[in-house]
Amino acid sequence: MNSESKLFDYIEQFMPLTADERSVLSEFNLFHFFEKGMVILEEGDNTDINFFVLEGCVRCYYIVDGEEKTTAFYTENENFAPDVDIQAKSKFYASCVENSIILVSDSKMEKVFFEKFPRFETLCRLLSERLLAKVKSDFDIFKLSSPEERYIHLVENRPDLIQRVPQHFIASYLGITPVSLSRIRGRLAKKV
Amino acid sequence: MNSESKLFDYIEQFMPLTADERSVLSEFNLFHFFEKGMVILEEGDNTDINFFVLEGCVRCYYIVDGEEKTTAFYTENENFAPDVDIQAKSKFYASCVENSIILVSDSKMEKVFFEKFPRFETLCRLLSERLLAKVKSDFDIFKLSSPEERYIHLVENRPDLIQRVPQHFIASYLGITPVSLSRIRGRLAKKV
Repeated sequence: MNSESKLFDYIEQFMPLTADERSVLSEFNLFHFFEKGMVILEEGDNTDINFFVLEGCVRCYYIVDGEEKTTAFYTENENFAPDVDIQAKSKFYASCVENSIILVSDSKMEKVFFEKFPRFETLCRLLSERLLAKVKSDFDIFKLSSPEERYIHLVENRPDLIQRVPQHFIASYLGITPVSLSRIRGRLAKKV
Repeated sequence: MNSESKLFDYIEQFMPLTADERSVLSEFNLFHFFEKGMVILEEGDNTDINFFVLEGCVRCYYIVDGEEKTTAFYTENENFAPDVDIQAKSKFYASCVENSIILVSDSKMEKVFFEKFPRFETLCRLLSERLLAKVKSDFDIFKLSSPEERYIHLVENRPDLIQRVPQHFIASYLGITPVSLSRIRGRLAKKV
């Protein structure tokens, strides 16, 4: 299945697309292929850009005192933007953990599209609300949990990330050292 | 200024309202007054409800092993919902830190309103996107910071909360004990 069909399939979970809508979506030339390891966003970059992952895995990270601190992973059908204020500058980096196909858009493209197809605004509102609820819930769980509980939550809810992402990125994401993560994994393996 | 005018003023920062829109908003009977200390949402409650704070301050918290763990505060012009899945049950509680005026709505009301005034969907999309960016940024900062840095960030970005919210709720929100918070405040006071 090509990238375009994947996008159409995703959108059609929420609303069927007309031939006209499909054709305008195709015209936009939204799809970009990035190789594993490629940095697609840097600190200081313009923020009028929106990423929607169709295939692959992206890692977001800050550089603090020369050290990378991973804060998020985005995989199939997840989107992220560096900042809602499109006049701002990005505070973080994003790079591909795998070869990835990513839909890249900006506010001008979105405006044209919403004007032509207002019902896409409904879709975008729904997706924003879903993502907002997910991020809030993840934040709550992070606050309420010990590092070990955070790891268990990740294994239970995002088992794919454990397989796809190198362990030192997972450790950084959980706010612990790779050594602590190995210890946690060791303890849990004994319990099974 | 009454609650209704406050709501209109808030919306008009984003788009002017017609007389018709104002009148429909008034008819909905959206405004509710809650006294300080009142619990407005409990664990297990239905989630088809949306809160928009017009005046006052709401605290969200989980009860873990009999202990309240504060995860969020919402004040003027901030909104929250227990879950995006309106079939779910709330996992957390919300109570008023101050006497509060809160706009309470549900999905049925929103649907009627969006159908009558589609451009409100644009507003809701924009607000969701703004809030999403804010929550993500807060989450990143929380992950990247020590408890002292989290407190400094709160003082700099939400000085009103420091004044409005009892210190033991602030400590819980920062993930530390009230004693640790007092120590941090002591250390910072000496630096000034």
